[in-house]
Amino acid sequence: MSGRDLTRFTLHAAYRSGELTPRALVAKLLAEAAARGSDPTWIRRLTVDELEPYLAALDGESPETLPLYGLPFAIKDNIDLAGIPTTAGCPAFAYVPTQHAFVVEQLIAAGAIPLGKTNLDQFATGLVGERAPAEYGVPGNAFDPDYIPGGSSSGSAVATAAGQVSFALGTDTAGSGRVPACFNNLFGLKPTVGLLSNRGVVPACRSIDTISLFALTADDAQAILDVAAVFDGDCAEARAHDFAIAGQRYGRPPAHFRFGVPPRNQWQTDAAYSRCMETAIGELRALGGEPVEIDCTPMLEAARLLYGGPWVAERYHAVRSLIERSPDALHPVTRQVIEAGRAPSALDAFDAGYRLSEHKRAADRLLAEVDVMLAPTTVAHPSKAAVAAEPVAVNTRLGTWTNFMNLLDYSALAVPIAIGENGRPGGVTLFGPAFADLSLLSLARALEARLDLPLGATGRPRPALPALPPAGDGTLEIAVCG
Amino acid sequence: MSGRDLTRFTLHAAYRSGELTPRALVAKLLAEAAARGSDPTWIRRLTVDELEPYLAALDGESPETLPLYGLPFAIKDNIDLAGIPTTAGCPAFAYVPTQHAFVVEQLIAAGAIPLGKTNLDQFATGLVGERAPAEYGVPGNAFDPDYIPGGSSSGSAVATAAGQVSFALGTDTAGSGRVPACFNNLFGLKPTVGLLSNRGVVPACRSIDTISLFALTADDAQAILDVAAVFDGDCAEARAHDFAIAGQRYGRPPAHFRFGVPPRNQWQTDAAYSRCMETAIGELRALGGEPVEIDCTPMLEAARLLYGGPWVAERYHAVRSLIERSPDALHPVTRQVIEAGRAPSALDAFDAGYRLSEHKRAADRLLAEVDVMLAPTTVAHPSKAAVAAEPVAVNTRLGTWTNFMNLLDYSALAVPIAIGENGRPGGVTLFGPAFADLSLLSLARALEARLDLPLGATGRPRPALPALPPAGDGTLEIAVCG
Repeated sequence: MSGRDLTRFTLHAAYRSGELTPRALVAKLLAEAAARGSDPTWIRRLTVDELEPYLAALDGESPETLPLYGLPFAIKDNIDLAGIPTTAGCPAFAYVPTQHAFVVEQLIAAGAIPLGKTNLDQFATGLVGERAPAEYGVPGNAFDPDYIPGGSSSGSAVATAAGQVSFALGTDTAGSGRVPACFNNLFGLKPTVGLLSNRGVVPACRSIDTISLFALTADDAQAILDVAAVFDGDCAEARAHDFAIAGQRYGRPPAHFRFGVPPRNQWQTDAAYSRCMETAIGELRALGGEPVEIDCTPMLEAARLLYGGPWVAERYHAVRSLIERSPDALHPVTRQVIEAGRAPSALDAFDAGYRLSEHKRAADRLLAEVDVMLAPTTVAHPSKAAVAAEPVAVNTRLGTWTNFMNLLDYSALAVPIAIGENGRPGGVTLFGPAFADLSLLSLARALEARLDLPLGATGRPRPALPALPPAGDGTLEIAVCG
Repeated sequence: MSGRDLTRFTLHAAYRSGELTPRALVAKLLAEAAARGSDPTWIRRLTVDELEPYLAALDGESPETLPLYGLPFAIKDNIDLAGIPTTAGCPAFAYVPTQHAFVVEQLIAAGAIPLGKTNLDQFATGLVGERAPAEYGVPGNAFDPDYIPGGSSSGSAVATAAGQVSFALGTDTAGSGRVPACFNNLFGLKPTVGLLSNRGVVPACRSIDTISLFALTADDAQAILDVAAVFDGDCAEARAHDFAIAGQRYGRPPAHFRFGVPPRNQWQTDAAYSRCMETAIGELRALGGEPVEIDCTPMLEAARLLYGGPWVAERYHAVRSLIERSPDALHPVTRQVIEAGRAPSALDAFDAGYRLSEHKRAADRLLAEVDVMLAPTTVAHPSKAAVAAEPVAVNTRLGTWTNFMNLLDYSALAVPIAIGENGRPGGVTLFGPAFADLSLLSLARALEARLDLPLGATGRPRPALPALPPAGDGTLEIAVCG
């Protein structure tokens, strides 16, 4: 597969030179989409007429005035774009919002162009990308259509990897932003919960949901985060954070740092994904990192609480009126998962909360021993056939290393590591405490430069990136970049 | 009623002059207790032999080496003192802990002497102090035995007010540390949840419980807090906080500040408690405060969530094995309240959590308009007869202004304001965001100096307190005092 290089670096260079305009780019992308025809990556693409106001707003602007000027992006269809239906992957649930989600509003105001709404595991419940109704179909993985795209943000990942957009919004409660990034050779940033507003997002587990970012490069992920991370006083779960005050900025990581690695017997990865871990360990060492073995038992136990515990009641809460009125409107697997949310009691909920607090205390103590943690993003890349055979069990295994991050209030970033001999990509995850987002991105950029993988599934080489100022002195604490 | 002046200021002066020793003081207190005979203020007093190790540990020490040297204190009987039964007000629940509660350990290490365990509303469920089994009896209010002591920390408040101890530990989930302080002319500090370790405390609502402090003066409350507020890594709910790093210290409040006052139609106070509010407003004005009307609707709505919502499931969780095995072992009113905790679902719990988040966002926005908030501590002081007639309804009204503080993650301090014409005391509460504890204490000290009330119910005059350094420049943000 090959496609365009739509990175911010490359597009802004083309816009600056006059070689390209946003309007011309969008016209080409629309023509290519029309040529592809029906594409389950998307639930709804915008028409020329619907795109026009966004293009008109860019007249007289430039990459100098708008940080995301002329960057086409995709929106997972559980996030509102004004005037376009939000379906959450369920036709019976659809509504037409009158306002953009707060984060979408920020991106558009910064010059980004919304191309449409992407497919997903219904109600963002799943890590496979296969739980979509027949009306919407299921996207193929951008590298191999016999393999799952990953979910729940399947369409956003595939559209970005295929070079159809510069970046995409997903959501990530239990791994929905990281697993599909891993399966499609992308950076998948799951920001600290509360850093991005959830206003205008269909809740999955409202207490631990976040919008996530799919990007082709770490620089792009940072530029998008910088625009999106505006405190929203009207989102009850939003948390104000000023990276500049916290002394963090995006930049070169320190010359020496300590990174935690779970013992190999905890990985649970197949051969290809074990090799990704080994490659990452070697590259982090080469960057000045000192590996420290960290027993991740408290994290893995917290992960098991997510679907075994009461949080599934939040998913039920989010779709309560529909599931009680028209249970058949749900995908059968999704319905089976979400209906379990009716069972737990408040006693169960508090009990799980207490256990989670204890896991968190233990996990935080481990995290404090290192500057950053390395972990598998997921354990293997299943085929579509494997998921069809065991839709719940395979899904559950995929969340081994993702389910705990939001429960424990950590920031996490899926980083592409290799294209395997089988032609499919794999990666690892860097994670840290809340608000370590810029530290993770800084380290990921250094890894990215060393690995020099092609962009997504486009076959295009990564653009040569400019040098960044150092991030700080001997720690991964780093300040906002311009 | 009259009693001793056991403030730290007075006792340390007597210890320094050689006029008194801790051993001599304890002997006198034991003799006085023996003369009083059976006293429902206490569930268990320590014997001479049990006290000896604590006294022996003070040999060779002095007020210069130990900040709480020789200060006798009481412990609410839901907090562990090693070797002495913890009953939580329920004989069938009793166990003998082998370790002190973490906070008790800190106080003893700083020279304080535990005299015994005090009575309470069973399982700290109640604000009246009347929900104790016949075996333990019910304490009278320190000013008028026909009136309730307040609860749930009834015995701790009465023992402190009566001059039997220098200070006492209570607990405070919904007002249990503030309501009895108000009814007994004491300072009742409900620290920020997590500032004091809950290890060794019988949970009420574990997610929002805190140990509270009863003291005769603001200086004493600050000195106890300074010793007790040590981060405990083995308490899952503990939160590390360094007042020095936060730029706060105990001292004189700024010359000008803004204080929020709920509109009068929200007070719900009787005539005596309305007068306390008016007096407090006048005194805060005299101290340089500018009153600002703050509509407290979001706070009052959060308060109503507490018993109407799922948090009562936490109380059920805490006593689950007992209430399921021997429901008759509970006080009938307590049983009725706690059994309701079996009903709510996890859906209800998450739903209430979402509503609470929304109330908190609205309430925080209001709090940001002022330096500190003033509110009634409670609405009236009921007689024992009134509570007997309507045990649940009267209790509920008492929590109008206390129930929301921990749910909203605020710090609060009950401050004595006046002895009314009826001979009974009344007060108000200062509150602020999490970790405003020292700011509240600083302002309370300034109020205390102006009001010059007698100490608790002892009839003793308040000692003349030394001047403190200024707390800062025009804000209520103030740094740790040495």
